[in-house]
Amino acid sequence: MRTHAVVAHGGGPTAVINASLAGLIEESRSRGQGLYGARHGIGGLLRAEFLDLMALDADLVRQIGEAPGSALGSSRFPLEEDDFDRLLEVFRRADMHTFFYTGGNGSMDTALRVARHARAAHYDLQTIGIPKTIDNDLCVTDHTPGYASTARFFACAARDVGEDNRSLPSPVCVLETLGRNAGWIVAATSLARRRPDDAPHLIYLPERHLSLDRIAADVERVYAQLGRVVVAVCEGQLDDRGRPFGADVDRAESDAQRLASNLGHTLARLLSEKLGIRARAEKPGLLGRCCGPFATLRDRHEAHLCGRAAAAAADEGHSEVMVALRRDGDTFLTPLETVARVERLLPADWIHADGNDVLPAFREYAAPLVGEVAGWPRL
Amino acid sequence: MRTHAVVAHGGGPTAVINASLAGLIEESRSRGQGLYGARHGIGGLLRAEFLDLMALDADLVRQIGEAPGSALGSSRFPLEEDDFDRLLEVFRRADMHTFFYTGGNGSMDTALRVARHARAAHYDLQTIGIPKTIDNDLCVTDHTPGYASTARFFACAARDVGEDNRSLPSPVCVLETLGRNAGWIVAATSLARRRPDDAPHLIYLPERHLSLDRIAADVERVYAQLGRVVVAVCEGQLDDRGRPFGADVDRAESDAQRLASNLGHTLARLLSEKLGIRARAEKPGLLGRCCGPFATLRDRHEAHLCGRAAAAAADEGHSEVMVALRRDGDTFLTPLETVARVERLLPADWIHADGNDVLPAFREYAAPLVGEVAGWPRL
Repeated sequence: MRTHAVVAHGGGPTAVINASLAGLIEESRSRGQGLYGARHGIGGLLRAEFLDLMALDADLVRQIGEAPGSALGSSRFPLEEDDFDRLLEVFRRADMHTFFYTGGNGSMDTALRVARHARAAHYDLQTIGIPKTIDNDLCVTDHTPGYASTARFFACAARDVGEDNRSLPSPVCVLETLGRNAGWIVAATSLARRRPDDAPHLIYLPERHLSLDRIAADVERVYAQLGRVVVAVCEGQLDDRGRPFGADVDRAESDAQRLASNLGHTLARLLSEKLGIRARAEKPGLLGRCCGPFATLRDRHEAHLCGRAAAAAADEGHSEVMVALRRDGDTFLTPLETVARVERLLPADWIHADGNDVLPAFREYAAPLVGEVAGWPRL
Repeated sequence: MRTHAVVAHGGGPTAVINASLAGLIEESRSRGQGLYGARHGIGGLLRAEFLDLMALDADLVRQIGEAPGSALGSSRFPLEEDDFDRLLEVFRRADMHTFFYTGGNGSMDTALRVARHARAAHYDLQTIGIPKTIDNDLCVTDHTPGYASTARFFACAARDVGEDNRSLPSPVCVLETLGRNAGWIVAATSLARRRPDDAPHLIYLPERHLSLDRIAADVERVYAQLGRVVVAVCEGQLDDRGRPFGADVDRAESDAQRLASNLGHTLARLLSEKLGIRARAEKPGLLGRCCGPFATLRDRHEAHLCGRAAAAAADEGHSEVMVALRRDGDTFLTPLETVARVERLLPADWIHADGNDVLPAFREYAAPLVGEVAGWPRL
């Protein structure tokens, strides 16, 4: 048993990352393992800003486990080569030999690099990854904690914006969802549909780069049929030239992760100009990853299980592994190298040939995770 | 007793307008009054598109009463002088002598004009207004059905976006709320605060036109203190020249109701350029008025009461009145002329002298309506 372990969070928070933290604390406690938390991710780790998580009241841990956001705090700290030595020095001084890192494929890559530096420096370190990403783009695991809650938020948003649009028909309404390169979140808006004319009428996937002309032709066709169009598109959607339709790009991201900050509105304005009809956009944005009331019980439960499984894996001597989820929610371990810096996109055969919708296979995959999105009654 | 009555919806839907419809149907039924519904507002009325609401199953009426959006459908139909004669002709043919109109101050003005045309034409018509607006900008009534649910949505959004921002600090996050000329909705984001550093850190009210320089100075000051700033601003906010900071304006609205469609993002971009720090914006937009899960029980109950009170007022022979709400949720009647086309702004003495926050008097007013916005636990 190792008495000095530390956990840190990497990247954007989710609605259930705290459930993984609570699971890790509770399982560590029951196994008599000590556990510290690093404030604000790798940055806090480098500054040795630790919190003794074993000193926390059990009730507070339970409450934290039900709250969205990262109670520890997170960061997007780009690690330089020097930082790995500094990190090992921090571990050495604090006599820490177990490192839990909660995050997505970028964080798992960081965890793997930390593990390799430790090995090269003959420092005894166990490294265990805990999966966390709303993007659902981690490999090996069937799905990722955090995804279902965000998927549910946007499916309900599509349903409710669709109901508003049906009540007071407006030619074009663009709903911008979270999601960069992988279309898992925007695809989930398809779960809002119950009847043939239900929103969203068009769903674009970032795996397919489409020209404005193609999108405008789709919108014109649906508008001719229904007199209204709800379009779902993620903030990472690119046009056929691989550009974000002229939208502003969030400058703090690297080029590889460029993030259009006003893509929905930009697309609405272009469609309005091109088709001569009114268009507006809604962008719930980060609310989709931190909206407490939309966290699903299953997602929270599985996030909690992943935390517990990480503590168990450490106790059993595993290292350089990430906890992963099977279809049914059971956990297993997978080597960090199978998930580090690999992005899982939506399977090509789940995307409509026209690139403007998902196929039923996606629904079969996502519906059990996201839960039923009940429709509203109609007169 | 009048056996031919009709109800129509005007303007944007809300999370509880259907509760008013259900209340009207149920009370009419219990009083043996017939009731038709016009599809899609005044437009449907002019086309005599009616639905016999007395033929509906009681269970469906109850379910409709709990759904957001307008089950009848609504419109923003600008009435020309000719339309009033056409409207009376429709009433005459269908032998309709009671007209219920559900809407805000613009709709109440329409109702009053319909009543005056009927009087001038010696057509026997009862006109009863049912209040409905998320904007809370109707006079005489203490508050309007639909406001509290939207206020709650944005208060919870400010809390959750604030929690996300605290988890992964980002210099500036602008939360754009609904609301044009009156600041009732954006003011409600203040209910998200529990601790001194809770979001939103700055709240701008459309009753105060502020320069970009003033706003940038506020943001810079908070950023220096906390290292992060969450700004709440409504889509109707104007700068000191009365312009929307260069944001795109929704062209379908009249100049008087100009609606900036990307004000939050525009402000974020300007602040980022001016201060040299990263900024992004979230805009839940129409989701804030149609998000079913955020409808409050009290709001829905009061909307239902307003519908019932309208049926009772008709049965008792009243006309040219609107149902209004007292502080405690009881209903009373007020002449249409007291509410038609008059906009109730946030009282000047509820706004901070710097125009960047509300004063405690607002909280005392709003908290009982919106309900407690519980904070999330912290480590």
